[in-house]
Amino acid sequence: MTRAIVLILLAALPAVPPATAARGALMPLPLKMTPGTGRLAIDTRFGVTNSGCPETAIARFKARISRQTGIPLGAAGQGLAEQGLAGQGLAVTCQAPAPDWPTLGENESYTLDVTTGGARLTAPTATGALRGFETFAQLMAPSPDGFEVAAVHIEDRPRFPWRGMMMDVGRHWMPVAVVERNLDAMAAVKLNVLHWHLSDDQGFRVESKLFPKLQRFGSDGNFYTQDQIREVVAYARGRGIRVVPEFDMPGHATSWLVGMPELAATPGDYQIERKWGIFAPVLNAASERTYAFLDGFIGEMAGLFPDRYFHIGGDEVDDAQAKTLQPRFNQRVQALVKGHGKTMVGWDEVLAPGLAQDTVVQSWRGPEALAETAKKGYRGILSYGYYLNYLLPAGTHYQVDPGDAEGILGGEACVWAEYVSAETVDSRIWPRMAAIAERFWSSKDVRDVNSMYQRMEATSRWLEWTGVQHRADYLPMLERLAGGQAVEPLRVLGDASEAAGHDLRAKGGKYTSLTPLNRFVDAARPESEPVRHLEQAVARRTPADLKTIRARLREWVENDANFEAMVDGDSFLGELTPLSRNLKTAGEIGLRALKYLESNTKPPRDWVAQQNQALDGLGQPVAEVILAAARPVRMLVNAAGK
Amino acid sequence: MTRAIVLILLAALPAVPPATAARGALMPLPLKMTPGTGRLAIDTRFGVTNSGCPETAIARFKARISRQTGIPLGAAGQGLAEQGLAGQGLAVTCQAPAPDWPTLGENESYTLDVTTGGARLTAPTATGALRGFETFAQLMAPSPDGFEVAAVHIEDRPRFPWRGMMMDVGRHWMPVAVVERNLDAMAAVKLNVLHWHLSDDQGFRVESKLFPKLQRFGSDGNFYTQDQIREVVAYARGRGIRVVPEFDMPGHATSWLVGMPELAATPGDYQIERKWGIFAPVLNAASERTYAFLDGFIGEMAGLFPDRYFHIGGDEVDDAQAKTLQPRFNQRVQALVKGHGKTMVGWDEVLAPGLAQDTVVQSWRGPEALAETAKKGYRGILSYGYYLNYLLPAGTHYQVDPGDAEGILGGEACVWAEYVSAETVDSRIWPRMAAIAERFWSSKDVRDVNSMYQRMEATSRWLEWTGVQHRADYLPMLERLAGGQAVEPLRVLGDASEAAGHDLRAKGGKYTSLTPLNRFVDAARPESEPVRHLEQAVARRTPADLKTIRARLREWVENDANFEAMVDGDSFLGELTPLSRNLKTAGEIGLRALKYLESNTKPPRDWVAQQNQALDGLGQPVAEVILAAARPVRMLVNAAGK
Repeated sequence: MTRAIVLILLAALPAVPPATAARGALMPLPLKMTPGTGRLAIDTRFGVTNSGCPETAIARFKARISRQTGIPLGAAGQGLAEQGLAGQGLAVTCQAPAPDWPTLGENESYTLDVTTGGARLTAPTATGALRGFETFAQLMAPSPDGFEVAAVHIEDRPRFPWRGMMMDVGRHWMPVAVVERNLDAMAAVKLNVLHWHLSDDQGFRVESKLFPKLQRFGSDGNFYTQDQIREVVAYARGRGIRVVPEFDMPGHATSWLVGMPELAATPGDYQIERKWGIFAPVLNAASERTYAFLDGFIGEMAGLFPDRYFHIGGDEVDDAQAKTLQPRFNQRVQALVKGHGKTMVGWDEVLAPGLAQDTVVQSWRGPEALAETAKKGYRGILSYGYYLNYLLPAGTHYQVDPGDAEGILGGEACVWAEYVSAETVDSRIWPRMAAIAERFWSSKDVRDVNSMYQRMEATSRWLEWTGVQHRADYLPMLERLAGGQAVEPLRVLGDASEAAGHDLRAKGGKYTSLTPLNRFVDAARPESEPVRHLEQAVARRTPADLKTIRARLREWVENDANFEAMVDGDSFLGELTPLSRNLKTAGEIGLRALKYLESNTKPPRDWVAQQNQALDGLGQPVAEVILAAARPVRMLVNAAGK
Repeated sequence: MTRAIVLILLAALPAVPPATAARGALMPLPLKMTPGTGRLAIDTRFGVTNSGCPETAIARFKARISRQTGIPLGAAGQGLAEQGLAGQGLAVTCQAPAPDWPTLGENESYTLDVTTGGARLTAPTATGALRGFETFAQLMAPSPDGFEVAAVHIEDRPRFPWRGMMMDVGRHWMPVAVVERNLDAMAAVKLNVLHWHLSDDQGFRVESKLFPKLQRFGSDGNFYTQDQIREVVAYARGRGIRVVPEFDMPGHATSWLVGMPELAATPGDYQIERKWGIFAPVLNAASERTYAFLDGFIGEMAGLFPDRYFHIGGDEVDDAQAKTLQPRFNQRVQALVKGHGKTMVGWDEVLAPGLAQDTVVQSWRGPEALAETAKKGYRGILSYGYYLNYLLPAGTHYQVDPGDAEGILGGEACVWAEYVSAETVDSRIWPRMAAIAERFWSSKDVRDVNSMYQRMEATSRWLEWTGVQHRADYLPMLERLAGGQAVEPLRVLGDASEAAGHDLRAKGGKYTSLTPLNRFVDAARPESEPVRHLEQAVARRTPADLKTIRARLREWVENDANFEAMVDGDSFLGELTPLSRNLKTAGEIGLRALKYLESNTKPPRDWVAQQNQALDGLGQPVAEVILAAARPVRMLVNAAGK
């Protein structure tokens, strides 16, 4: 295999083997990209010449390159370059500083030229330079002599100005380190909004100095201090990411009422909600005391979060009376938000007659709701179709488009945290988030799902250098389940499986916020990369592929005995016994299909239908896990039957 | 396999299969441990009742348990317990606070009682409680119902009061995050000294406000600000770890002279040293100006580092004249150190007539040097035999003992960083450091190497929950080398290999501080766990073992073709071609030996000798990597010949 860099240019390219395609794969794809001739070598002499860009950004960029390549590069300003060691490098120019804080609609464009003699990154503002740095880092690939970037000319700018991710820290607590490493990964795929869902029935997560009972009684001690909030906001700013706080009201606010029951529509003794769902407690929309409180609270939070936009939630109010009062409530809150210099954002439900025209509506209900929003002259953000916690394939999200209607600012992927903990959140976001980030940044006609998957796999590995743990956490979680036994049978089973998402886990209501998320389903990935590779192999069926397929099918068959040897009435593992048996059966079916294929013999009548039916059964969830392995086996069966 | 907890009690226990042995394996082993009956369940209701211990320590402990188990536990003070959810838990009592700063010789003992009804941890001071927390966390293991700790009574205290690790951040820069995660892991195995080697010829790593030219010209911009130093020292304090700074003088000080050439014994224009070795430049021991500077500098650093001990290096002075002056230099520096309220520590070479009697001598030369130190009435620390950067087997370090002579305070493992970077340092320290930590903490008669390896493997996985990356970084580094190709052939090769240590890499002098440490040798582990398991299988040779052995040998044989398909004149990978071929050959030899063994046929005359000779060749380093796979194959060959 040659080490030539293959730049993937939209869907028009012929299929290339994944291994080759992955080299220097860009995600999101830039607007314009023209390959040049030759390569720029990246070695110890690599330096950055700065004209007008923030030194901190350059230092971070160099640290990233060092991490990604293992090549030592001096810190900014006092680096190796100054000692005459600098060779060819990157000259970066920021024609103007970035705004004090990242701002909706700011210019994020950049131009990147890479030649054998050096690279040049030019941007109207420092924010564009940040985006260009990520492109450059992503283009770097190993070469015979170390690392290199293939010559290229890139002109790039985003399709949408609002490219966000919503992180729910109300339902499960996410420490600062988790948020920050995700900010690094978000910046890497050019996202620019962290929508921080900071309160819900299960937790109030911010320190209020004016109303300390909120966090004192509403958080189990798990809240961000104001210093930590400032730290995260500054961290995001350095990466060109806005932080939009959400305080969900008047519903989803049980946690507020634990310490401040006087705010409730109904008097009572409130406890932090441990279950999941929509609950009756609401803030009292009929009381002036509520608005006086909100004025103080919103004022305090408006000072803490510099972004112009302030999200008040507004979704899923259960109480009939409160629902009636909600339009008026929203208007009052909007006035308060505006009074503190902010523009209000709310979920679909806030859209009602009388809503201030500058409100931004975030649509979780669907394209019709978003269209209605736009028709009424409101600005909108699409989240429908981008719920990462449903654990759908990246390809499904990738096909959802916010559309081009006037007023559509972009989209936000959401990570609702009923079944997502600090430990599992990275793998529930990455790498699928990268595909959605491409949808938000790249042209509408960038739609080839195969190309997306090829590049997403490379991006998934590349993202590890940003610090997210989506790949690293897999084996430790399985090893915890193995409890000191050899992990291999669990790894084979895990690689063949996919975790079920929100809907299936919600069934039966057996989970609370206190239920540990440490079972096999929590370790399993939303999409199995090994199974996808096997599907690709089944589609190709070269002689080498057939060999690989047979080895994998045999491994599945043999794994069941090894797995059974691990289990001993253990609830962690015992629930997986049927899954392991199903994997064995799937392997056996696959081996039979392979025999038909290789012997060029048609299977007997009804065999194909029977196997398909059997595979329907094997594809049913066990212990909230789907046997992804059934998919390539089905492909084999159907190929044999053709 | 049953899930019963097996507590490993010293060397007397019969051999147990590794999988069983690993459950709740303790390292270091406590002084006294008596198994009880039953188990304490660990679930969401787990609470900690605190009497006199720091709340921050308890919060950290609960966070650790949460991370290790995936079970949500509220933050300290405002946790779930207060809401009536607390069940049985751990009652911890600190009879007295810890000293303001961790102190040499402080009481670190604790008593831990675990019963089915609850656990009790009692310590004379908060430091002992920290040690006990780690024991409790290490005892936790998965159970059919979640997690549990087997009933036990433990009385524990350290053998030595000085149990350290020396981290060289002069030769390769280690960011704060790297130091901090290693402090967490150190605390986990009850180490209590971070000896921070903060300056060397290749870098001066601390901000001096009095002499800013030191870091400005001597660090490539890679230095700790004073705020960062305070942060790390406080971080260590919270974990019961002293921080002893070392500023190496009068030799190993080239980096000081870049900005302050006036301190040099020989006038000149100094540059940061990029090579490795012992260099001529020294501080001018004959000039009063040097002592005036050192008085100011040591005073400033004495204020920054609260520990009573201050390390002045003093090793490897190359200049003949300087060597003559060194005893006088040391006496002068000792007086300055003492004048700023500190006790001096130095390497072996400081031991000379006239050296102040309270000086602590750190021995890198060997037991004789340490004995001489003790004989002369000085206190000593052993580092000889504990150089982790030699990448020796844990078992080798484990057999080195500081001894019981009067005045021996303990030992320190050293991580010299010529061939160790921020990326690779964790895997060069862990898990082998845990074996040395046991040597420093546990009784002298805890010496069983098999038991140590069994527990070290479990501890290696457990340490991942502290945040060290020694296991997590392996695949990403290999994937970087694979450059987008499937990583499997590299993983098979990597699992069969071991990285060569300092001496071999130093040969030929081709490395500088700017050479990237991103090759296969840097990804390879110092000790291969898969090969160790194979050696154990070869020693046992049960029918199941033979099956495993054959599969592995075949994998090695088949891997070579897959590996070759990846290589294309690539320097990253091309240098490994002979290694891959050697692995294939080793696999072939092993398969032949296996055939003899299974057919109960004696191999022909000379065959055993010939294969042993061939294996000698295969065991030679290739690309600075040792083919560990040759060892189990040699065992097979010799077994066949018997």
